[in-house]
Amino acid sequence: MTRRSRLHVVLLAGGSGTRFWPLSRASRPKQLLPLAGRRSLLRGTWERARTLAPAERIWVVAPRSLAGAIRRELPGLARDRLVLEPSPKDTAPAIALACTLIARREPEACAVILPTDHVVRDARAFRRAVAAAERAAASGALVCLGIEPDRPATGFGYLELARRPRPGEAVRVRRFVEKPDAARARRFVRSGRFLWNGGMFVWRVDRFLAELARVAPAVRRAAAGAAAGDRVAWERAARVSVDYAVMEKADGVRVVPLDAGWDDLGSWDAAARHASRSVGVADARLLVDSGDTVVFGGRRFVAVLGVPGIVIVDTPDALLVAKREASESMKSVVEAVRAAGRADLLS
Amino acid sequence: MTRRSRLHVVLLAGGSGTRFWPLSRASRPKQLLPLAGRRSLLRGTWERARTLAPAERIWVVAPRSLAGAIRRELPGLARDRLVLEPSPKDTAPAIALACTLIARREPEACAVILPTDHVVRDARAFRRAVAAAERAAASGALVCLGIEPDRPATGFGYLELARRPRPGEAVRVRRFVEKPDAARARRFVRSGRFLWNGGMFVWRVDRFLAELARVAPAVRRAAAGAAAGDRVAWERAARVSVDYAVMEKADGVRVVPLDAGWDDLGSWDAAARHASRSVGVADARLLVDSGDTVVFGGRRFVAVLGVPGIVIVDTPDALLVAKREASESMKSVVEAVRAAGRADLLS
Repeated sequence: MTRRSRLHVVLLAGGSGTRFWPLSRASRPKQLLPLAGRRSLLRGTWERARTLAPAERIWVVAPRSLAGAIRRELPGLARDRLVLEPSPKDTAPAIALACTLIARREPEACAVILPTDHVVRDARAFRRAVAAAERAAASGALVCLGIEPDRPATGFGYLELARRPRPGEAVRVRRFVEKPDAARARRFVRSGRFLWNGGMFVWRVDRFLAELARVAPAVRRAAAGAAAGDRVAWERAARVSVDYAVMEKADGVRVVPLDAGWDDLGSWDAAARHASRSVGVADARLLVDSGDTVVFGGRRFVAVLGVPGIVIVDTPDALLVAKREASESMKSVVEAVRAAGRADLLS
Repeated sequence: MTRRSRLHVVLLAGGSGTRFWPLSRASRPKQLLPLAGRRSLLRGTWERARTLAPAERIWVVAPRSLAGAIRRELPGLARDRLVLEPSPKDTAPAIALACTLIARREPEACAVILPTDHVVRDARAFRRAVAAAERAAASGALVCLGIEPDRPATGFGYLELARRPRPGEAVRVRRFVEKPDAARARRFVRSGRFLWNGGMFVWRVDRFLAELARVAPAVRRAAAGAAAGDRVAWERAARVSVDYAVMEKADGVRVVPLDAGWDDLGSWDAAARHASRSVGVADARLLVDSGDTVVFGGRRFVAVLGVPGIVIVDTPDALLVAKREASESMKSVVEAVRAAGRADLLS
């Protein structure tokens, strides 16, 4: 009934990286850091993408300032598959630009859109969900991968399901809900009808561009312009997320649940959940009465005595010691560092 | 009635310095560190001593390994006033050696014995107490300076007064009490009849040496031998504190209360009490929701987020993050560092 088209993968590699200061800097945002293992998050995402498509069908969208770092991190990335945004415009223009470039070559191609700062523990469950989403996308749906919540998180948007899907099925999204407060988040999770919006999408690029032209024509024009080398057209576009500009308004939006040990590394606390908790003097770390304390970076010997539940981030020019829960407020720290006249520690 | 003799000062500059790791190392124990101001504790003690006596009557007893560092720290110290212990033997032999050398020149001299890791905020009150002690010493008493306790500390020994003295008066010590538990310490402080034993003494050297010969003849022989260049005699002496070997057994022991903003810097917590608490970005320190947190050392920028009541000690090769109260157990940390094969971080 529906013709199966070839799958491309679009990796979104923008982002400022203030949340992981002092390890992350403007020139080295979090997706370039090894926050959940020995490899960078970007490299981990690339390798996940490689299980979905060959290198010539993997695209990376990124700001120009990161081009060199990304090429070093991804030696397998094909030369003309690195798409440089003329300026940062959030996800809607970035995705639209990549889909425009894909559509030029293969108008009926299917694209998987993936942020590059996620952790996915179960690669097999991930591929299964993408395959289910791809089937629905082939029929014309714009498909979100919705993450099965394991806690009432307040840091993510939620998707309300029209009903619980059967395995491998895509169901209609009743509505998108922005980050809820704690009480609402608890109700959402209890109901069983809400998934986290992880910002991962699967669609045929022609279907996406058609919906884009209908609900966000300015973004469509900016992407078409940039694809033709017209920077002025790009600059005219507003900064806007794909959720807000497209998904909340588009027709045929579906969701496939993803239960694959997913996490969004949005804070040091989240990174600490994925770090080895080994209390290793071999590691030049000595933790005494300091459970759930995690030390990142640094060649120095670090001893912690009686301070549980913190993260320590040791870099050559700056040191962070933070309560794990408080690490959500890194933005205020970075702003204070800037206000202190130490922008040198951020660049 | 009693002839006033000239006052000498003996500064005790030994000590291993594990309590202030990683800032203190074997080659740089705490008395050489600026733990309560811009100058080292040793230098602060020297300057206090200089208000009591001219440089030619100030003696420093120290291990040979610290000779160079002490001369650099105290350029005013007379060449032959640095007394090097052949080996560390605790306070009784060290004090006995210094008093023997003083007695050779001035048998009736009075000596003030001062540890070099103390803080004294009120220099005037300190001098007043020493003057009162000196008057009692001139009459033959062995005088302790007993510190008025401002809390039921369990880290100090206590002296029980025979009765509350009048201002400037020395009274008999009923008994010496070793470090008490918390309940006993509370009773002591409530009673008003107990002072902390701060290890500061004033006596005529002839009187001290006579008592020493009576109650600890082995220590007397070791000191006499070392003063004559006989190292073997010194090595025969046991390691023993002056409190245990002499003061608890001697006749004529008196105490003069000292209320002069005294503190013994025995832990990072104590040092933190004396550190500036200024939350200064100018200081390359940024404390957010982190009251009573103190950062020592380091040229790096240190940001603390949501972690109150800790000390951070930032050195080029080792970092310590410790709960202030837990910093009493630094010994276990230092032992674990050694067990981890990192003795290089201790030397």
